[in-house]
Amino acid sequence: MAGRGFEELREKMLKSAKAGISKAYQSEEYALMQAVNAQIETSRSYNLAFERLSEWQGLYLPEIKIGNPKSLAKLVINLCNGKTDRESISEALGEGGNPDNVISNISSTMGRKMEDEEAAVVAGFASQILSMADSLDMLDKYIKSAANRILPNTSYLTDHMIAAELLSRAGSLERLATMPAGTIQLLGAEKALFKHIKFGSRPPKYGILFKLADVTNAQKEIKGKIARAYATKICIALKADYFSKNFIAEGLKKNLNESIKRIKEKPITPKREDAGGNFGRDRNRKFRGFHGRRDGNNSFRRERRHRD
Amino acid sequence: MAGRGFEELREKMLKSAKAGISKAYQSEEYALMQAVNAQIETSRSYNLAFERLSEWQGLYLPEIKIGNPKSLAKLVINLCNGKTDRESISEALGEGGNPDNVISNISSTMGRKMEDEEAAVVAGFASQILSMADSLDMLDKYIKSAANRILPNTSYLTDHMIAAELLSRAGSLERLATMPAGTIQLLGAEKALFKHIKFGSRPPKYGILFKLADVTNAQKEIKGKIARAYATKICIALKADYFSKNFIAEGLKKNLNESIKRIKEKPITPKREDAGGNFGRDRNRKFRGFHGRRDGNNSFRRERRHRD
Repeated sequence: MAGRGFEELREKMLKSAKAGISKAYQSEEYALMQAVNAQIETSRSYNLAFERLSEWQGLYLPEIKIGNPKSLAKLVINLCNGKTDRESISEALGEGGNPDNVISNISSTMGRKMEDEEAAVVAGFASQILSMADSLDMLDKYIKSAANRILPNTSYLTDHMIAAELLSRAGSLERLATMPAGTIQLLGAEKALFKHIKFGSRPPKYGILFKLADVTNAQKEIKGKIARAYATKICIALKADYFSKNFIAEGLKKNLNESIKRIKEKPITPKREDAGGNFGRDRNRKFRGFHGRRDGNNSFRRERRHRD
Repeated sequence: MAGRGFEELREKMLKSAKAGISKAYQSEEYALMQAVNAQIETSRSYNLAFERLSEWQGLYLPEIKIGNPKSLAKLVINLCNGKTDRESISEALGEGGNPDNVISNISSTMGRKMEDEEAAVVAGFASQILSMADSLDMLDKYIKSAANRILPNTSYLTDHMIAAELLSRAGSLERLATMPAGTIQLLGAEKALFKHIKFGSRPPKYGILFKLADVTNAQKEIKGKIARAYATKICIALKADYFSKNFIAEGLKKNLNESIKRIKEKPITPKREDAGGNFGRDRNRKFRGFHGRRDGNNSFRRERRHRD
């Protein structure tokens, strides 16, 4: 009988563990994180494939260069299927394209004649690019709507993609919402941060937040300050997203814009080379291994070994 | 009248230049190189996307792990469309799959419930993977047939993909066919080679040829020798491919197999640590910058700066 009691207990424990796992995954944030990572990876592959197709198409029709991946893929598929009438070409190029130019070049091209076998494989490669483009569109749409549900304040303050990327870097909404502003500011700059800690190179000023238009377009000297201002407000917005679920982003955005205005209006003081930690000299030394001399606040480094 | 003569001459020159370019691109080798590069890049993207889908699907059905990208993509599309009947699942899994296991897990899963919006985006991502798989199949087929036309001897001796990769690394069949065997042996190992030349690390033994089953499966000590034997025969095969266009690969293959047999039968002599160039010590020093002392045959290195 003791055996059966044990068996029952085991069943119950298993059930409760399963329920725990199930509950942990009910939040949509995990799906959003997968979507963000899929978006980042797919867009990288997409650009690579576009460049390859562009080069490949250059063998057959070197006179034409098309900058839009979808237009290029459609045009290549048309060419491979022998659809060189004005309507098909014009449809492939979309608005702003110049179908007459393409058509006149097709007849007089100095490129290679396309064999049937090649045509099939190039068309297949082009349709893979179209499929990637469709998938990217869907991912973007989903990320936008999910970020609006999960991170309404943060998305309003920054941008859907940036909010979602921050989430994906942090690993969970709870972790992200309890991070200090300084950590949020540097999410995505881990490599530079550890290089700074280990080798004494200049500390990073921003990670993912670099993608904010306000940071990108700012003057070099105040980029870090603007990233810092954003990080503090994002930190508040995240707490609203995770704990209270109130929408407070409009007020935050107003405050933020005022801070940025103040930062931009303040005159820029020239940087002293030796301020805070002697980074100038350290930077020149960072890849010479661990041989740095002890100097003041960098006392954790190993001493130079004297061998000569 | 002099103006018109000049104009005519210009026209002629342009025409002849165009004809020259056109002629240069008539060889199919350029299309083959594009296909090889597309294959390498696409298969990298494909594996990445498969891993992402595998992780994403794990949110909804963590009990099931599927190792085949196509089966996984088909299964995910079925799940997203609500097709959970035995026939659809069994078709998606293909031969060797266990549809009953999947079906029983679907009903009792501890994973997350899939919302409609998520289902659409996951299905889109999965169909992107299917499209990539189709494209890869076509690329493989084309590479096989084109390598057989352009590099019949080399393909016979090694493998279509390896022959095509060698071609793509070299940049043209002419360049590849006039390369010495030592260069062919190291194609694809440029990074290791230059590390050897600059910092005195161990020299590489093979580049692309490492993918040959004979090299991969050989004992560690004779891998380099077998790669060398292959390289010498490939060098001859390439000359037949480019110049004489005869098919001589059968005889070469026989000779090659004899050489490999001889290499394998020879007893392996243990390596002396200090033989030829003092690599042991150099290896420990390779990342300390350019501070190495002059030692014998490595005299091109800069002397250590004495600062202490």
